[in-house]
Amino acid sequence: MKKKVVLAFSGGLDTSYCAIYLSRDLDLEVHSVIVNTGGFNKEELDLIEKKAYALGVTSHHAVDAVEGYYNSSLRYLIYGNVLKNNTYPLSVSAERVTQATAIANYAKDVHADFVAHGSTGAGNDQVRFDMIFNILIPGVGIITPIRDLKLSRDEEIEYLHRHGVEINAEKAKYSINKGIWGTSVGGKETLTSNGMLPEEAWPTQVTKTDAENLELEFIKGELTSVNGVHYDHPVQAIQALQVIAAPFGIGRDIHVGDTIIGIKGRVGFEAAAPMVIIKAHHALEKHTLTKWQLSWKDQLSMFYGNWMHEGQFHDPVMRDIEAYLSNSQKTVNGKVFIQLLPYRFVVLGIESDNDLMSSKFGSYGEMNEGYTGDDVKGFSKIFGNQVSIWHKVNASNS
Amino acid sequence: MKKKVVLAFSGGLDTSYCAIYLSRDLDLEVHSVIVNTGGFNKEELDLIEKKAYALGVTSHHAVDAVEGYYNSSLRYLIYGNVLKNNTYPLSVSAERVTQATAIANYAKDVHADFVAHGSTGAGNDQVRFDMIFNILIPGVGIITPIRDLKLSRDEEIEYLHRHGVEINAEKAKYSINKGIWGTSVGGKETLTSNGMLPEEAWPTQVTKTDAENLELEFIKGELTSVNGVHYDHPVQAIQALQVIAAPFGIGRDIHVGDTIIGIKGRVGFEAAAPMVIIKAHHALEKHTLTKWQLSWKDQLSMFYGNWMHEGQFHDPVMRDIEAYLSNSQKTVNGKVFIQLLPYRFVVLGIESDNDLMSSKFGSYGEMNEGYTGDDVKGFSKIFGNQVSIWHKVNASNS
Amino acid sequence: MKKKVVLAFSGGLDTSYCAIYLSRDLDLEVHSVIVNTGGFNKEELDLIEKKAYALGVTSHHAVDAVEGYYNSSLRYLIYGNVLKNNTYPLSVSAERVTQATAIANYAKDVHADFVAHGSTGAGNDQVRFDMIFNILIPGVGIITPIRDLKLSRDEEIEYLHRHGVEINAEKAKYSINKGIWGTSVGGKETLTSNGMLPEEAWPTQVTKTDAENLELEFIKGELTSVNGVHYDHPVQAIQALQVIAAPFGIGRDIHVGDTIIGIKGRVGFEAAAPMVIIKAHHALEKHTLTKWQLSWKDQLSMFYGNWMHEGQFHDPVMRDIEAYLSNSQKTVNGKVFIQLLPYRFVVLGIESDNDLMSSKFGSYGEMNEGYTGDDVKGFSKIFGNQVSIWHKVNASNS
Amino acid sequence: MKKKVVLAFSGGLDTSYCAIYLSRDLDLEVHSVIVNTGGFNKEELDLIEKKAYALGVTSHHAVDAVEGYYNSSLRYLIYGNVLKNNTYPLSVSAERVTQATAIANYAKDVHADFVAHGSTGAGNDQVRFDMIFNILIPGVGIITPIRDLKLSRDEEIEYLHRHGVEINAEKAKYSINKGIWGTSVGGKETLTSNGMLPEEAWPTQVTKTDAENLELEFIKGELTSVNGVHYDHPVQAIQALQVIAAPFGIGRDIHVGDTIIGIKGRVGFEAAAPMVIIKAHHALEKHTLTKWQLSWKDQLSMFYGNWMHEGQFHDPVMRDIEAYLSNSQKTVNGKVFIQLLPYRFVVLGIESDNDLMSSKFGSYGEMNEGYTGDDVKGFSKIFGNQVSIWHKVNASNS
Repeated sequence: MKKKVVLAFSGGLDTSYCAIYLSRDLDLEVHSVIVNTGGFNKEELDLIEKKAYALGVTSHHAVDAVEGYYNSSLRYLIYGNVLKNNTYPLSVSAERVTQATAIANYAKDVHADFVAHGSTGAGNDQVRFDMIFNILIPGVGIITPIRDLKLSRDEEIEYLHRHGVEINAEKAKYSINKGIWGTSVGGKETLTSNGMLPEEAWPTQVTKTDAENLELEFIKGELTSVNGVHYDHPVQAIQALQVIAAPFGIGRDIHVGDTIIGIKGRVGFEAAAPMVIIKAHHALEKHTLTKWQLSWKDQLSMFYGNWMHEGQFHDPVMRDIEAYLSNSQKTVNGKVFIQLLPYRFVVLGIESDNDLMSSKFGSYGEMNEGYTGDDVKGFSKIFGNQVSIWHKVNASNS
Repeated sequence: MKKKVVLAFSGGLDTSYCAIYLSRDLDLEVHSVIVNTGGFNKEELDLIEKKAYALGVTSHHAVDAVEGYYNSSLRYLIYGNVLKNNTYPLSVSAERVTQATAIANYAKDVHADFVAHGSTGAGNDQVRFDMIFNILIPGVGIITPIRDLKLSRDEEIEYLHRHGVEINAEKAKYSINKGIWGTSVGGKETLTSNGMLPEEAWPTQVTKTDAENLELEFIKGELTSVNGVHYDHPVQAIQALQVIAAPFGIGRDIHVGDTIIGIKGRVGFEAAAPMVIIKAHHALEKHTLTKWQLSWKDQLSMFYGNWMHEGQFHDPVMRDIEAYLSNSQKTVNGKVFIQLLPYRFVVLGIESDNDLMSSKFGSYGEMNEGYTGDDVKGFSKIFGNQVSIWHKVNASNS
Repeated sequence: MKKKVVLAFSGGLDTSYCAIYLSRDLDLEVHSVIVNTGGFNKEELDLIEKKAYALGVTSHHAVDAVEGYYNSSLRYLIYGNVLKNNTYPLSVSAERVTQATAIANYAKDVHADFVAHGSTGAGNDQVRFDMIFNILIPGVGIITPIRDLKLSRDEEIEYLHRHGVEINAEKAKYSINKGIWGTSVGGKETLTSNGMLPEEAWPTQVTKTDAENLELEFIKGELTSVNGVHYDHPVQAIQALQVIAAPFGIGRDIHVGDTIIGIKGRVGFEAAAPMVIIKAHHALEKHTLTKWQLSWKDQLSMFYGNWMHEGQFHDPVMRDIEAYLSNSQKTVNGKVFIQLLPYRFVVLGIESDNDLMSSKFGSYGEMNEGYTGDDVKGFSKIFGNQVSIWHKVNASNS
Repeated sequence: MKKKVVLAFSGGLDTSYCAIYLSRDLDLEVHSVIVNTGGFNKEELDLIEKKAYALGVTSHHAVDAVEGYYNSSLRYLIYGNVLKNNTYPLSVSAERVTQATAIANYAKDVHADFVAHGSTGAGNDQVRFDMIFNILIPGVGIITPIRDLKLSRDEEIEYLHRHGVEINAEKAKYSINKGIWGTSVGGKETLTSNGMLPEEAWPTQVTKTDAENLELEFIKGELTSVNGVHYDHPVQAIQALQVIAAPFGIGRDIHVGDTIIGIKGRVGFEAAAPMVIIKAHHALEKHTLTKWQLSWKDQLSMFYGNWMHEGQFHDPVMRDIEAYLSNSQKTVNGKVFIQLLPYRFVVLGIESDNDLMSSKFGSYGEMNEGYTGDDVKGFSKIFGNQVSIWHKVNASNS
């Protein structure tokens, strides 16, 4: 009986090569699987399935992971206002973790002997896949034909041709990865340190030219309504917002960051809904959380995002941080008012029953009943007391 | 002989009231002083001096603190990419510290018995002034007539009138505070949680409508050239950049933050040059610093900014952090390319001899000579080893 | 009808003075309350009640807060291995918070108009009491006769005498504060920077001279058994351990720390059970938590302890951190083996089903099946890749 | 002409095997080098040199790295009071970095083609050596015969015998690594999670039974005098202290920690001088640094120690942290008084011109001139203001 391999399959050149190679050269029973984190619609998934069977796989399976992806990862990225290096919503990083986890679970379910992915030896994804497979399915062998064989595109095409598979030989000018939390765009301009992607490289073309108002509502830190329309699951709210905001060309940027393997990388991305949500959510938090709640959230979230980026999602420290983040959202309730404009947006303000700026309890710049000028004098004296002593003690040497 | 008071003087209603009150009611010899942190030009300073003498002060002194302000504070805010709550360049917070320090030193120089400031009992400034005076000139009494007497505008005007001083009774619609690191704007809209300042409230009107390219050069983290023009001191470069960028309406936003006295406050600000510099500097750092250099800088800078905001500039921990930040800038050299557009700007890329993304040593997404796919396989195994062990050990309970 | 005041009452000179003063001079109906956090036994509490009624209070109430204290605070100090400045288990700081909170709740229950405490104007306690009262019962006035009137001991004694109350006039050589989490000792030696408390100043005299073995068991981070005896509530386990460990003279030290009001303070303490528990718990965690779980716990716990010390227990950030800490304890299960010796103890080792050092999955210093030498070579190459690139890029300037 | 290899040589079985193997099997010209970080005296070094030449090396070189080790690493571990997992002074971790760096520099000096070390594939040292060689001498090949060939002790002995080298075949019961910053001890008891090293396993036997007083003086954080004797270099002071403290059996413990390769490890260590110095230095800092200086030092130092432990000493972030730590030591001056006792020591107190506890500026527990009870009332009100507002705003939901 043939041994079973589960192949992470996208329908592209590399994973098509893998499908044939695993079956013909390695004599394995190939079970292809694709994990949808919001980047594919029904038609695209059907097409990929068709391609898989055309390559002769024994079975093909599509995992609908969008809600699971949100529940396990995205909501914490929102709670934490996570932008890597203050720029990137971790569009690809976060979905790879969900995909690798789903594939590992599928491999376990079908009692696979091997699991295969089409990553090259040059990026982050190989580490994420390898590591998560090592962690979740330690007895299952990992096969990475593209990394190991180091074939050129032409060699892969030629190999497929020899096995009766014709594939579109033209390489796309820009490599695109799409998911619910953003679309990454890599190309000529991102390979060097200087250069912006041209207008045509961005997935969504700008069709809106006039300002539009937007109202988002959050309950316990989760997006529940967009422009007054309530959604049953935040995933639907995110998708609705994406339809509204994307045509403004909002959320385009280039991220420069540290890859897991130590080199610096640069990648373009378009993430209209994620950027609007994070900035709106953060604005709401500034009004509803205390100074130290904000401060510790920042530190924990920065780590959380980086550690997820590096594929370490299954470290139990991530569960601990999630417990912190969830607890911190109890009072993050209310509406955020936003103006959408071509290429940018402005957070106009918020409205919340949990607003600590509530004018009932003292306003900035106005005296109030809570305390007196003398209280502040006393505060200033004590608040500066230690530094005052330090200067007295060290007067001669400072 | 009369006792001497040094009065922090701006020429406005409150400090005009103080000048008369200190002299007539408290029978003190008033020495007014204004500390310029880039908000006043020669004509404005001359006018303020004239006003001071018209109020009968014994002496008036203007301290030119712009370069000192940069040297002692601003450059660390740039090294640290400091934006409070990820938004506000600390325009006012930082300059108050410089002003209070300069006034304390002046009071020490002229052997003042008292020092006076016109802060009300409702904001951050009173704490900064009180505390820095307590720290630097502990023997000198602090007088705060406005806070203590809680007079209305009309009462102040009437008092001045009685003493023969006529002052423009009309209150400006928006209160403005200008310095080299930005202009704050407070008004009706910022007093509540929801509302954006109207176009006319912003100090600089938008006159540029076309995109313009901009090139900034940094040496050891300091801005030295703008569009190829070298400046002797970064202060001049900042001012030159401000002239270029401000007419685009860049750097306008509303900051929501925690005041030192515990209430939430909201303030508009316009800070074209600061925002462009910080984003450009940060982009350069992402290319030239290691992952952990960036990470620790972020944490230390966040604290540094907050602690400065809270007036604790003279805590020696600030000197320790400055030592860290200065050391971290050794390789932050190079050019940053930017596109200026109405209301926004885009960092296009950088060019640096210290660029760690240098294609000589491996490119993201391309295999290279430095390591092999097998190296990464080994890395993935070891990098995930502890979490893998954790899952094996805790398999039954997880 | 007289207005009601709730008085935090200890039976000592200061609070006895307050009881009379509030009733006679301020004409209030005095309701005394004592909150027991483990420092008082039945007889002591009865004696204090008798004293209260002898002073003419309208009612006296003793709150048994030991288990509540543990549930709301102590367990998080254990989860976090909290030792302030790496020394002090926060014996007094933590119990003041519980006491102030219980008193505030009592004042609310009895609809008090005022709440009074006997703190002087020189220490931490006044801030903790004031602040927690301001937070939890904002409408209730705070009266602090000792701080406000600045009376000497003799004046207080004389005043009480005038009102027919005789009190032991002799001041104890050492001021003692006892609770379940340790006993603090202040005296001549702790008032200066140099000097150790003499043997007789320590509350527990050393009677054990031989080594003894001790076995502690923790479940989810909580102490459940001591030497094989299971306890229904950790409070009982702590008390049982205290009986065993205290006669060894374990857990004595002097803490030097920052008071809330900015000055440095020094205080002796004896905390046998707390020190043994914290070190044992930490040892167990080193075996059962991942590197980053340990690292983040350290940072959050350090803050948690300091913020509790400063009386900020009711900041919601504390609840967020507690959520983190609770979640982190899921795998902190097992036995810790300890040797008790006069004045010291040694953690001998641990035994746990969650031990990540489990020899099943690779031992330090021994090769194992999980990975090969080649894997480590690859790891070393990638793990050092960025720093290697940094040195290449900066070869000329480094 | 033969190619040159520099061999890290200790004179033990593994590196003796390497010396022969590199020369006979790989036909290389072997240059052995030993880096002394305080673990070897003159006689031991001479013996090792004799062994090297007996194995036929072309040259042997001993690097005296003790002062360099202190200057580049140890002093920062002292400034930072670094104890990994609050226990271990990083005795071995720190010296491996110095050794690997010195060997890399030597290999560069003699234009070696290869560098070899005798690490096995199971511990931390292989990563430290590999990584530092990759970073500092990227063109030089790394040879690790013991890791690659996985020979047993008997096979190595037999191989050496075949090549005419007789070596003592008996394996020591405990493996010992000695340096100026402590001696590590591994053996049967440290291989499992439970077990303490027996008395005879500890390198220094306890000969002191009576208490002894000790006085250490620090200038800018560096140990300069021991019992009133001034030393030209801190290394000499450390060595003098070691002679005094070691016979007390002070500084013995077992460290449980995370290895670089993800498994947990346990190792005994004896570090009398390091433990006394760190605790004394920390005590002095508690008196001379502000609250936030202490807090940030703690966080940075914890990272610094871990990152050094993981061999990442050459990451420029380490230089940035060193700049912070050096700056923080300006006021860490004074004497620390200690009592040495069998198996333990007590810090009695300190004396310093920079002592912030100076009774001149307010004492804990005593009222003073700097501020009044009313100041503290005001402080308490403002300090708790935000949390008070939070509770009012969230009264219904909390």
